[in-house]
Amino acid sequence: MIDTDHISRRLAERREGFSLPQAFYVDREMHDVDIKAVFETEWLFACNACEIKNPGDYLTLEIGPNPVVVLRDRGGEVRAFHNSCRHRGSRICGLEKGHVNRLICPYHQWVYELNGSLRNARQMPADFDRTAYGLAPTHVEVICGMVYICLAETPPDLTRFRQGVTPYIAPHAPERTKVAFEMTIVEEANWKLVIENNRECYHCAANHPELTVTLVEFAMPDDPGGIELMARKAAHWDALGLPHRPADGGLEFRCIRLPFHEGALSFTMDGSPACTKLLGSLTDPDLGSVRMFRAPNNWNHFLSDHIIHFRVLPLSHDRTALRTTWLVHEDAVEGVDYDVKRLTEVWIATNAQDAELAAVNHRGIRSMAYRPGPYAPSEFMLTHFGDWYAGKLAAFIGDPLPLRNAAE
Amino acid sequence: MIDTDHISRRLAERREGFSLPQAFYVDREMHDVDIKAVFETEWLFACNACEIKNPGDYLTLEIGPNPVVVLRDRGGEVRAFHNSCRHRGSRICGLEKGHVNRLICPYHQWVYELNGSLRNARQMPADFDRTAYGLAPTHVEVICGMVYICLAETPPDLTRFRQGVTPYIAPHAPERTKVAFEMTIVEEANWKLVIENNRECYHCAANHPELTVTLVEFAMPDDPGGIELMARKAAHWDALGLPHRPADGGLEFRCIRLPFHEGALSFTMDGSPACTKLLGSLTDPDLGSVRMFRAPNNWNHFLSDHIIHFRVLPLSHDRTALRTTWLVHEDAVEGVDYDVKRLTEVWIATNAQDAELAAVNHRGIRSMAYRPGPYAPSEFMLTHFGDWYAGKLAAFIGDPLPLRNAAE
Amino acid sequence: MIDTDHISRRLAERREGFSLPQAFYVDREMHDVDIKAVFETEWLFACNACEIKNPGDYLTLEIGPNPVVVLRDRGGEVRAFHNSCRHRGSRICGLEKGHVNRLICPYHQWVYELNGSLRNARQMPADFDRTAYGLAPTHVEVICGMVYICLAETPPDLTRFRQGVTPYIAPHAPERTKVAFEMTIVEEANWKLVIENNRECYHCAANHPELTVTLVEFAMPDDPGGIELMARKAAHWDALGLPHRPADGGLEFRCIRLPFHEGALSFTMDGSPACTKLLGSLTDPDLGSVRMFRAPNNWNHFLSDHIIHFRVLPLSHDRTALRTTWLVHEDAVEGVDYDVKRLTEVWIATNAQDAELAAVNHRGIRSMAYRPGPYAPSEFMLTHFGDWYAGKLAAFIGDPLPLRNAAE
Repeated sequence: MIDTDHISRRLAERREGFSLPQAFYVDREMHDVDIKAVFETEWLFACNACEIKNPGDYLTLEIGPNPVVVLRDRGGEVRAFHNSCRHRGSRICGLEKGHVNRLICPYHQWVYELNGSLRNARQMPADFDRTAYGLAPTHVEVICGMVYICLAETPPDLTRFRQGVTPYIAPHAPERTKVAFEMTIVEEANWKLVIENNRECYHCAANHPELTVTLVEFAMPDDPGGIELMARKAAHWDALGLPHRPADGGLEFRCIRLPFHEGALSFTMDGSPACTKLLGSLTDPDLGSVRMFRAPNNWNHFLSDHIIHFRVLPLSHDRTALRTTWLVHEDAVEGVDYDVKRLTEVWIATNAQDAELAAVNHRGIRSMAYRPGPYAPSEFMLTHFGDWYAGKLAAFIGDPLPLRNAAE
Repeated sequence: MIDTDHISRRLAERREGFSLPQAFYVDREMHDVDIKAVFETEWLFACNACEIKNPGDYLTLEIGPNPVVVLRDRGGEVRAFHNSCRHRGSRICGLEKGHVNRLICPYHQWVYELNGSLRNARQMPADFDRTAYGLAPTHVEVICGMVYICLAETPPDLTRFRQGVTPYIAPHAPERTKVAFEMTIVEEANWKLVIENNRECYHCAANHPELTVTLVEFAMPDDPGGIELMARKAAHWDALGLPHRPADGGLEFRCIRLPFHEGALSFTMDGSPACTKLLGSLTDPDLGSVRMFRAPNNWNHFLSDHIIHFRVLPLSHDRTALRTTWLVHEDAVEGVDYDVKRLTEVWIATNAQDAELAAVNHRGIRSMAYRPGPYAPSEFMLTHFGDWYAGKLAAFIGDPLPLRNAAE
Repeated sequence: MIDTDHISRRLAERREGFSLPQAFYVDREMHDVDIKAVFETEWLFACNACEIKNPGDYLTLEIGPNPVVVLRDRGGEVRAFHNSCRHRGSRICGLEKGHVNRLICPYHQWVYELNGSLRNARQMPADFDRTAYGLAPTHVEVICGMVYICLAETPPDLTRFRQGVTPYIAPHAPERTKVAFEMTIVEEANWKLVIENNRECYHCAANHPELTVTLVEFAMPDDPGGIELMARKAAHWDALGLPHRPADGGLEFRCIRLPFHEGALSFTMDGSPACTKLLGSLTDPDLGSVRMFRAPNNWNHFLSDHIIHFRVLPLSHDRTALRTTWLVHEDAVEGVDYDVKRLTEVWIATNAQDAELAAVNHRGIRSMAYRPGPYAPSEFMLTHFGDWYAGKLAAFIGDPLPLRNAAE
């Protein structure tokens, strides 16, 4: 039973410019609340469409208790279904990735078409109405190769997001990519700490030696520390017709092109490209990276030579799965155009460091001495995320979103 | 605290011919409910009496939080006690099986007789009344060698069960058997899914290659697929005076003799007997198997050459222990009359397959898209089990059992 | 949400001379209650001051959800702080033991002085008030080298304890010791069972072969089994000016000097000293041991040649961490004056045996058949502990402590 009064009171305690009240991070019960209020209502990044390239290719994931299968149907459309047989509920597709001609439940072999309709249910009586037992679909949108799914009956509108991010991402030709490497790690932290960790680079200098070889710590083009570098790169990108100024994503998403340190072109240990074959038809490697974040579960980097997607899914109040996929040009050849170790080592190291930081953050927040603390200016995106999250919870419990308390 | 309103509402949602509402399978809180409403009130299969053949032999098990010891007392009677010292509650017998002259608590060496009375409690004052601190007994019944225990104060009446199954089982002389092999596996599924999996063979053809060498898929003698085979075997068994038609067990139990596939005599990979020394005084190997199920935790096969008992005990809402014991004639000699691998390999493989199916079933039922689904005709025994279970819960919460909703 | 009515009713069920009602030992919810009512209000043993000998040395522990760091500041004072950064709550010190010049949060490098004040918070705005964000301190007292901490706002008074135990312990010169060995084990039992196990030696004879080589089973000087031995040793200690009669610690603490078996001098397998260099300026090895217990989490032995501290911390309702430290004279040389194996083997074995007994006790108490059982006379200290514990819970829920029911 969800205690809406408790949530309402905690929401009212929020203070502008401060981290969230303790309960949202560490209470066991918040897992169910977050699943219902956020993960069963919002658009969630699932995978890149190139992971299910051919009809019958599928990929599975679990949104809280909900197994979902994302697949490409015979007509080439991407679809997603609740991965639960309409007979007695068994999970149908068991692998993380696979290929099928039809979806056949392993338990009693009910057979579904790739459009979800029940084709056959052996031994059922003659009057059994198969049309009443198709797989339950979820909403799907593919935006610049990124597959988003939504379990809600009526999903939020994605128009602004699609229109906002496409000009930045489309030049990187995500529709002509393939997965070079993928990896899932489990972090011992609440999912919001995993997201918050990603939303600021205040922690980078001391914690990410591999990443900061190339990544600039600033997040906005007018950051005093980056004005000169930014001006040079902006002129370069303007000349190429590539957008770079922050998109107007409100609390919903962020999209911006930012440079690497001068001379660096990609997330490698020396800044040189990780893949000699650039994405799509790109010829200039000096494109910095398009950084795109979409609440609640996805951030991405689009470079000249590769794309990295990050997907966050909560497993419990204190465990979170992070899946990372590295994509290169679909015609790039491993061992010739790219080396998997060079391509992945920076973010594999960075993810491991962030996992440790998030875990240690979670451990400390459990303390009776925890009080929401003040954000540094460079943590402004945590305010955005906190406001977005609070809005989702307020909507869920039917509250008007309480105003945050003013900074004191 | 058990939410009886919630249970009552869920019971009222049941629909005739459909699987149970989600909450009964996957809610964490249902474990306590099931323990109290079912496992602390019903007769439960514990073991075969041959496992505690001699006075002082004991076997332990845990019914939810309740450690229990089943033993043979000095007079040769089978008894069972709560395996908890009356001093400070310590568990007394620690092994799964053992032999003792008296029960001695390992903590402070209080000594109990095999009839449960406290014989000695060292260091206690002179006025200590030992008679007030005997072990708490549980009810025990031995039926055809099968030991059933009941933790309730007033156990349900077993007369119908005893009278119903004895004519089928007695010819297999279970009182003259020994354990050839035993094995416990833990399934990642609610216990009701483990039972339901066993109550139908709709899933057998595609999942149990070893079992279906010999096992017929039909469950009733008038099944159209088995009429001819059944008629031949029925004539044979009638001539031998062996009952085979379904016993009238209502929702409480099922007992029937069914044939193997033509030519098969036992659960082996080629259908030949697993033990050349037949049970008791049997001389004809062609007896099919007596299949006996008793709600909530026990099914069995009685063949001409061996007996298999299955015992189900819930460990949590999503974990269940299944213990399987294979029994042969007490005079059969391993390596001469039987080979353990041949005897056990079919059901070891089958159990592993069923464990996977139950786990996958559990995972899928957690989905928000789960709706109780329609049973195939061959799943009629799931309706029986669901009704029996609903009756237990309704009795526990003091509800009149709500009518199931009619099929639509 | 803590159900105070439930606690109140369970407290009222207590019966004089009997173990506690089941709920206090095995209910999952009791962990939170015990943390709040006992472990966040009481003085808890943390470590010996010699473990943080130099300024900047620190030691960490977790009191329920609360990470705490104990350290020696620049002035040589022992201090303790909640180990949670005031920025976003991250745990600051990650090692069990370490040395720092200042406390630097690993996440964003906020820098705290060893007195807890925030020295620097990089990137924070010019108007950021660092003085408002010092580390939250906890209370600390060092008594005879033992560091106790208290998380309560207003800690209980320690005067009686300090005055009571100092005359017994001071002669053993704990301020001139060092750690020879330390070890933490996790017991599968409620913390109260770990304490109760330690509060009686009724279980020793049958379970602790190594310990009973030297340890006498009696706990009071007038025990009929020890009168003669006690008289001899008392005369000896009186001549040395060493106190030995039980201190007046009420329910709060116990302190007494008791002999070993005749001829034994230390907790070794043959009773000979474990360390040839005696503690402080002691010259007589025949001092028995000062046994000091303080509710809720600490017992100790002070011998002529070494000191052993035991620290109990609950991890959950059914898991408890026990840390044991063996201390010798600070100038003793390993391999010359003492051998770690000889020094530790008796209590390493004893701890392992007690862990098994506590786990088995916990398992048995879960039974529906558990009823609080009668204490033997030698278990009188369990009555003290039970009364102390009940008092803490009653104070927490604001109840007058209900009278125990009289023995029947």
